[in-house]
Amino acid sequence: MKHYKQSDLAQMKDRERARFVNCLSGFKSANVIGTRDRRQQDNLAIVSSVVHLGSNPPFLGFVMRPQSVTRHTWENIEESGVYTINHVGESFFKRAHKTSARYPREQSEFDACDLTPEFMDGFHAPYVAESSLRIGMQLVEIIPIQHNDTALIVGEVRWVDVQEDVVQSDGYIDIEGLGTMTISGLDGYHSTSRAVRLSYAKPDEELRELHINGETKG
Amino acid sequence: MKHYKQSDLAQMKDRERARFVNCLSGFKSANVIGTRDRRQQDNLAIVSSVVHLGSNPPFLGFVMRPQSVTRHTWENIEESGVYTINHVGESFFKRAHKTSARYPREQSEFDACDLTPEFMDGFHAPYVAESSLRIGMQLVEIIPIQHNDTALIVGEVRWVDVQEDVVQSDGYIDIEGLGTMTISGLDGYHSTSRAVRLSYAKPDEELRELHINGETKG
Repeated sequence: MKHYKQSDLAQMKDRERARFVNCLSGFKSANVIGTRDRRQQDNLAIVSSVVHLGSNPPFLGFVMRPQSVTRHTWENIEESGVYTINHVGESFFKRAHKTSARYPREQSEFDACDLTPEFMDGFHAPYVAESSLRIGMQLVEIIPIQHNDTALIVGEVRWVDVQEDVVQSDGYIDIEGLGTMTISGLDGYHSTSRAVRLSYAKPDEELRELHINGETKG
Repeated sequence: MKHYKQSDLAQMKDRERARFVNCLSGFKSANVIGTRDRRQQDNLAIVSSVVHLGSNPPFLGFVMRPQSVTRHTWENIEESGVYTINHVGESFFKRAHKTSARYPREQSEFDACDLTPEFMDGFHAPYVAESSLRIGMQLVEIIPIQHNDTALIVGEVRWVDVQEDVVQSDGYIDIEGLGTMTISGLDGYHSTSRAVRLSYAKPDEELRELHINGETKG
């Protein structure tokens, strides 16, 4: 094992430290966030920080930096109060990564990156037609993380659109079956393999392996 | 595609909704959090919400519910101000999942789940010997998410211990090479495959595929 002290991290060059520290949290979710401003200008941004906050009410969060390349997304969410979260799939992950480039405000990343905006009836923000799992979100709260000038965007799920055959009867969604990708660091993209579900853990019981549908194996 | 409205989610049974909504964020990080209280009582808890907050200073966050099964972890972090984050690897993910059972406070999950606590010189919280990437964390701030009674635990990286051969010269850590797992929903465990790195995106440049070490392919 190699040991890195705080001073070792401090002495790294900025880009090296960014690559290193971005790998520490483990695998990240891969989503693109769709937004639209008042003048119908669309925006799409890849985000690797979407995180589950609670299931009742159904809340998801993600981390943003107000002054970063994703500032148009931030401003559109503040202005409209809605956004979409779209799983990044194997079929379009390179186009999704390209949304991280610094496009001017008047250019839609949907156009620039060859992705298709579509709309759910009455919902202001565009979703990504290429995605197999899309979520309509309503902004609940923007919580500042003052120590490092970021914020947690907290939202409530308003609707979910998902390929029907991957939703199991017990509620589990086979996102591996959807081809949803996962991200490492700033630029690593991975497919997953060999899903195993495990039974609910209790102190005095052996764990059981479950099939995707939640039934005990063997 | 199947469409779920807000009212469809509200009508699900609690466990079904929990399984469904926990899959929506995409793939999650798989980590176990090691803590120790003042009386040297250790605790270990699996957490799927660790998220990158920033690289300079190096900040990681994770989401906790004060009254949940992880309340001992919460209390130990408040009391001692330190904790470890340990990547869950293929070799011990079932033992890591077992830490989610409701053990009594006086029982260490290290013992109950057959995992090995070890200590970094002068650092109060135990790390997991079986893990190939362990991080010593100092609590910075606990930020309440009032709308759903959870909190974001914000911490700063104090040290990192990682298998040396996976750290690339540009700073990227090959966590797929480490065997780090990723989680879907409440109970799905996955290995990853076929890492691809992509070049930094710029508006007028084609993306390039990179080797693990950051060099352009082909």
